[in-house]
Formats: sequence, C-alpha cells, structure tokens
Amino acid sequence: MKLEAIGVVHSIFTVQTGTPVQPAFASGKDTGTVEVFEPFEEGLDDLERFDRIWLLCWLDRSGPSRMKVVPYLDTETRGLFSTRSPSRPNPIGMSAVRLLRREGRFLHVAELDILDGTPLLDIKPYSAHIDVFPAAEEGWLGERVQRRVEADERFGKES
Amino acid sequence: MKLEAIGVVHSIFTVQTGTPVQPAFASGKDTGTVEVFEPFEEGLDDLERFDRIWLLCWLDRSGPSRMKVVPYLDTETRGLFSTRSPSRPNPIGMSAVRLLRREGRFLHVAELDILDGTPLLDIKPYSAHIDVFPAAEEGWLGERVQRRVEADERFGKES
Repeated sequence: MKLEAIGVVHSIFTVQTGTPVQPAFASGKDTGTVEVFEPFEEGLDDLERFDRIWLLCWLDRSGPSRMKVVPYLDTETRGLFSTRSPSRPNPIGMSAVRLLRREGRFLHVAELDILDGTPLLDIKPYSAHIDVFPAAEEGWLGERVQRRVEADERFGKES
Repeated sequence: MKLEAIGVVHSIFTVQTGTPVQPAFASGKDTGTVEVFEPFEEGLDDLERFDRIWLLCWLDRSGPSRMKVVPYLDTETRGLFSTRSPSRPNPIGMSAVRLLRREGRFLHVAELDILDGTPLLDIKPYSAHIDVFPAAEEGWLGERVQRRVEADERFGKES
C-alpha cells in the first residue's frame, strides 16, 4: 500500500492554530489553489461542473496517533475513530471544499481547511446522491457544533 | 507516506460484478463486519451512537489507474477525478455505511459496497454537520443516478 502525491494544496493557512477544522466550519474567504501534477491533469476533465469536491490529503503535520483524544469540537475525551481529529494511524484528511474554477491543472477552491503544502492523494466529486444521508444520529458530535471552528496546536508534532 | 491496515472488511461480496457501487445504492441486506485490529480497539469508543460511519479502505483489487474512464453511472468517458471509479492513482475508497452495532473490535454494518478482505485504513464518524452540503451542482452525476447500481468487471485487474 504505497501512496504517491498527485498534487499539492496551496493555502492561506500555514499553521494549525487558526485553521478551520472542517470546510463546513470555514468561509468563502478561506481560499487556496489545488495544484495537480502534469501526469494527472487529464483526469480533471468534467470536474468543472461540480460545485463541491472531496480532497483526500496526507496530513503531514499531524502528530502521532492516539486512540483517545479531546477533539476540537468537544471538551471530553473520545475514542479517536468517533472524531475527525487529524492524529490518526493513517493521517488521511477528507475535505469537501467548494470548487470556484479550474485553470488547466490548477483548481481554485474556497471553504478550505487544509494547510499550505499538504500532499494531495485524490480528488472525488461531491454528490448529494452519494454523500448525503437523511438525518442520522451522530453521537457526541450532534450536540457540539458551532458555526466556525478553528484548530489549535493539540494535534501538532509537538503536542 | 506509508499506510498500515488498521483492520479488514468482511463482506458478503467477493467479486466486483454485482457489488453495489456506493452505500447510497446498496440496501440493508448488503451487510458485513468490520474487524479492527487489537491495537486500535480503544479508538472505537463513542462510535456506537453514530448511525453512519465513513470507512476508508485500500481498494486492493482495482486495476491500474487511468485518467479517462466510463464510470458505472454513465455511458460516456469522463475525467477520472470527476468520477468515484476505483481505478485511481491512490485507490482509497470512501464508504459511508450504516453502523448496526459494535461488539468489541467488530463493527456490524449494512449498506456496504466493499469487497471481502479489503484492508481498512481509517474510520471516521459521519456527521450531517460536516458531510452534508446544500444542494450543489453535480455535473454529469446529477443526471445519471438510479436506485441500486451494481459494479461489473471494468475496474478489475484484468480489464
């Protein structure tokens, strides 16, 4: 199971503290550019007509994985896999960002929650027919959400 | 960027042909068990209260990546990254399956679209607050969906 970067995310965010913790808690001003490397450019065709896309990234600045964490959205300790915290055994981030426009192998995006320089692993189209499910019980998360939520240093290499 | 399997998916599906192409096109009878390896069991705490979970898997039986594909849901050739086809540079599958119950390090799930024996990379909670976005334009996908869609052999190793 070997990964290769297919591109890199260029973002206004350079440190975890202050970065939105999810696209859903980001704003239209949280912007960036997704650079896709040349061998993969042709795979971007037909993507322009999607308003939203999943970016799968390698969260290269997350700390070692821990099975118990206090997530950004909570004040209690939770099992890691019941959270979206970045310090995971396989630190793969899933971000449904807004696609503004494509320019060749560059995608201009907003509602971004990804640090500058993060390696890109995959892009998938966001589809209401595939990704939206009727209101489901969502454990501790359902009780804790606010409007805009920013990260701090708790999942960094130093913590 | 090295991956390690944190578990394995046990499923009623052993070949691509006939397997649902997404949880959204699967049914409650499409069931399986997600086995999480012992070092990661504690990370499953608090997951029981979620109705739905994301499984990130390594699609080990998908063929070599191609930048142009005819996806299961369409009859026209599309750019790979505008599709959810499994033959990708990094064959990471994202499946929002229904969580029925947890028994220790085993999760019983339904609405499954994953082949038996597939390596598990990550589990994340599905949250309407994080994963659901208001109706967005979704390119060719918006025009093509049906109720239950099954795979065939087109993204296998032999194709």
